[in-house]
Amino acid sequence: MTDLSFITSPITGFTSRFSLSDAPESTIHILKLSVLDWCAVGLAGQGEPVSETTRAMVNSEGGAAQASVIGQPTKLPARAAALANGTISHALDYDDTHFLHIAHPSVAIFPAALALAEKENASGAEFLVAALVGYEASCRIGHWLGRSHYDAGFHMTATAGCFGAALAGCRILNLTTEQTADALGIATTRASGLKNQFGTMGKPFNAGMAAANGVEAALLAAGGFVSNPDGLEEFADTHAGARTELSDVLAGLGKEFVLERTQHKFHACCHGLHAALEALGGFLDAEVFGVDQIDQVIIHTHPRWLAVCNKPEPRTGLEAKFSYRMAAAMCLAGLQTGALEDYSEATCTDPNLVRLRNRIFVEPDANLPDSASRISVRNKLGFNYQAAHDLNQRVSPKQRRKRVRQKAAALLGENRAEAIWLVICSLESVDSVTGLAGQLSESS
Amino acid sequence: MTDLSFITSPITGFTSRFSLSDAPESTIHILKLSVLDWCAVGLAGQGEPVSETTRAMVNSEGGAAQASVIGQPTKLPARAAALANGTISHALDYDDTHFLHIAHPSVAIFPAALALAEKENASGAEFLVAALVGYEASCRIGHWLGRSHYDAGFHMTATAGCFGAALAGCRILNLTTEQTADALGIATTRASGLKNQFGTMGKPFNAGMAAANGVEAALLAAGGFVSNPDGLEEFADTHAGARTELSDVLAGLGKEFVLERTQHKFHACCHGLHAALEALGGFLDAEVFGVDQIDQVIIHTHPRWLAVCNKPEPRTGLEAKFSYRMAAAMCLAGLQTGALEDYSEATCTDPNLVRLRNRIFVEPDANLPDSASRISVRNKLGFNYQAAHDLNQRVSPKQRRKRVRQKAAALLGENRAEAIWLVICSLESVDSVTGLAGQLSESS
Repeated sequence: MTDLSFITSPITGFTSRFSLSDAPESTIHILKLSVLDWCAVGLAGQGEPVSETTRAMVNSEGGAAQASVIGQPTKLPARAAALANGTISHALDYDDTHFLHIAHPSVAIFPAALALAEKENASGAEFLVAALVGYEASCRIGHWLGRSHYDAGFHMTATAGCFGAALAGCRILNLTTEQTADALGIATTRASGLKNQFGTMGKPFNAGMAAANGVEAALLAAGGFVSNPDGLEEFADTHAGARTELSDVLAGLGKEFVLERTQHKFHACCHGLHAALEALGGFLDAEVFGVDQIDQVIIHTHPRWLAVCNKPEPRTGLEAKFSYRMAAAMCLAGLQTGALEDYSEATCTDPNLVRLRNRIFVEPDANLPDSASRISVRNKLGFNYQAAHDLNQRVSPKQRRKRVRQKAAALLGENRAEAIWLVICSLESVDSVTGLAGQLSESS
Repeated sequence: MTDLSFITSPITGFTSRFSLSDAPESTIHILKLSVLDWCAVGLAGQGEPVSETTRAMVNSEGGAAQASVIGQPTKLPARAAALANGTISHALDYDDTHFLHIAHPSVAIFPAALALAEKENASGAEFLVAALVGYEASCRIGHWLGRSHYDAGFHMTATAGCFGAALAGCRILNLTTEQTADALGIATTRASGLKNQFGTMGKPFNAGMAAANGVEAALLAAGGFVSNPDGLEEFADTHAGARTELSDVLAGLGKEFVLERTQHKFHACCHGLHAALEALGGFLDAEVFGVDQIDQVIIHTHPRWLAVCNKPEPRTGLEAKFSYRMAAAMCLAGLQTGALEDYSEATCTDPNLVRLRNRIFVEPDANLPDSASRISVRNKLGFNYQAAHDLNQRVSPKQRRKRVRQKAAALLGENRAEAIWLVICSLESVDSVTGLAGQLSESS
């Protein structure tokens, strides 16, 4: 290989030169839904302990009022705002997920892009294109690093996220391709984040680190910092990178957008429950018989989930989030599985819900992929409704829009959610991101 | 292994409980010399491009006046000051080196300890003990991570340095052993730094990152951040840790100090020249015959250095730093190889120095270790003086003190260097580190 920059070069070129007018409408649409989703989970997570702790640290530092922080009126320097907002928006672990490279892109990319956009007084369109190139590049670099990187113990949200955040930052700052390569080089020595933090405050903090690292790398490169522009290639060596075939990784770059394959979470509970809840939603939509007619529900799921989220008789809201039976009962009874409050002790002890829960059974099925679930709902006459859902199924644009907006409404209330959505929809035509940033700095 | 915390537990216990009165006088002595050395190279490096770029970024952020930054009157938040000071003090690559784990400990540990000491208004003794435990723990954790970690591509100064900086910070903040373990856990997911930056601004920046990461981890743990307290053990898995035998790594912890094996650089040039310059210094000290009597000098060195630092006829100051012949001529002619200015174009073109240089020859010798050099100095009567030096030889405490002070004087001028040394000597008896910090914030 004579040119070491075989991946840096196309990625940095895409970052500095891509024009928003070349993006398909469908891509912009999903990008905007991800921004809405990110705002909703960020505002909803602002009071979590990790959010309070991280915000307390950056507030004690203070500094130039450059960028908004979720849940407070006081602005902070862009790097600090990115650290706080990345952490806060991942606190609930309810943000979007991309399975091409197993990461949560929004929580690293958007905080970096928005903080620098605010600092630089960039337009809504400039924010959108920076968010788009950062998001897309992050997924593709993550794809290149591959499963071996994730399996070795690295938290892809933090590593690929740092690269995407740096690239988004470079685009906001209008850096040249060469400066962008320097920023990416800085990002390779700065990027970190381990899966050893899962289950602790360290997991959401990893997202904040990625966002802050990206802002830092872009600012330093803008200031003349010279790094190793082949850093990304060497990062793969030190970090168990799979080096997925480049023709796959770069296929259609700038024309087709893997961003469109992102998935939004629609239930505020363990991911293992989602496929079953989707299948039950299908049962409700089909209206073949009423919930009061249900005699028995059997949920078939991949056996790996039984150790994760099969609390048979949960007593607390947290336990309910890891209970097939309870979450399914909530879904059938019309509670909001996308909201946080409905997972509660009151829910777990409600006699009607407990009666419904007791009619629900969970069966392992090793033939199912772990992204899928199959349900059998039998009524009192013996009629059996059967359905299945795989989370990897494509969601139609219309359906996705409806459900992300419903989720935001469940988290923030309908008025607030719609106000934010209107701001996002008008981003192309506003000459500042102040409106969007202002939505985050208001308490929810 | 039932207790995963097999290394975290002894290290955090040492960090939170060690008393300065239990440290041997020799350890304190070398620690103080390292502080002097760090101040000298930091002040001397304040105008380097990477120093300017990094300082510009943190100054544009501003914030609470918590801690001093090398070379400017304005204080910044501790985390920002640590980032700047770590970077600035490593800018010349002239700081101390520890070969137990191949790293530069001071530039990660001292900026973190001093920034938090200033912020917390800690006493001189509190700064010293924090610096000591951070330094010692950093070397031992680095020893545990081992050469495999370094060889894989990780910059030990940044990784082991981050752990040491976090521990020093925890000690300043008087954290409990449990909080210290949380800080170390945060440090494992935050630590980064790659050798891929060598030869770029990224190398000194790696030291700044380590210092800032350490401050951040300590502050977050103090604020109630819960991380994975077995993080360090898992860090070894993800980062090619050798897991050196624990009985070696922890031998004598709290009683014997590997810190004492640190090496100070006494010549402001490529490390490959140092052993030869030391041997030539021995020739001058021996006074067997005068420099004007020299007919020929042969420098024997390990062949690997010939590709690194054997410019036969250098023309610039930078080239002189990579030239056996020129640096040796400078040494013999009484120029200051420990100062920065004497490596200059004027030196390279001085007719007397060029004549001397032309009598000097370099020969490879694969039997020499790469830390050693052998010289033969022949006078005009045919008498041959022979000597050798290995950098791994122990230096006597008295000799070390003399030479670190000479180095500081060469970099800062004698008055300034002695003023700083006096401040350091009185650290145990002062109730604030303001005096030391104030020395750094003055321009050199």
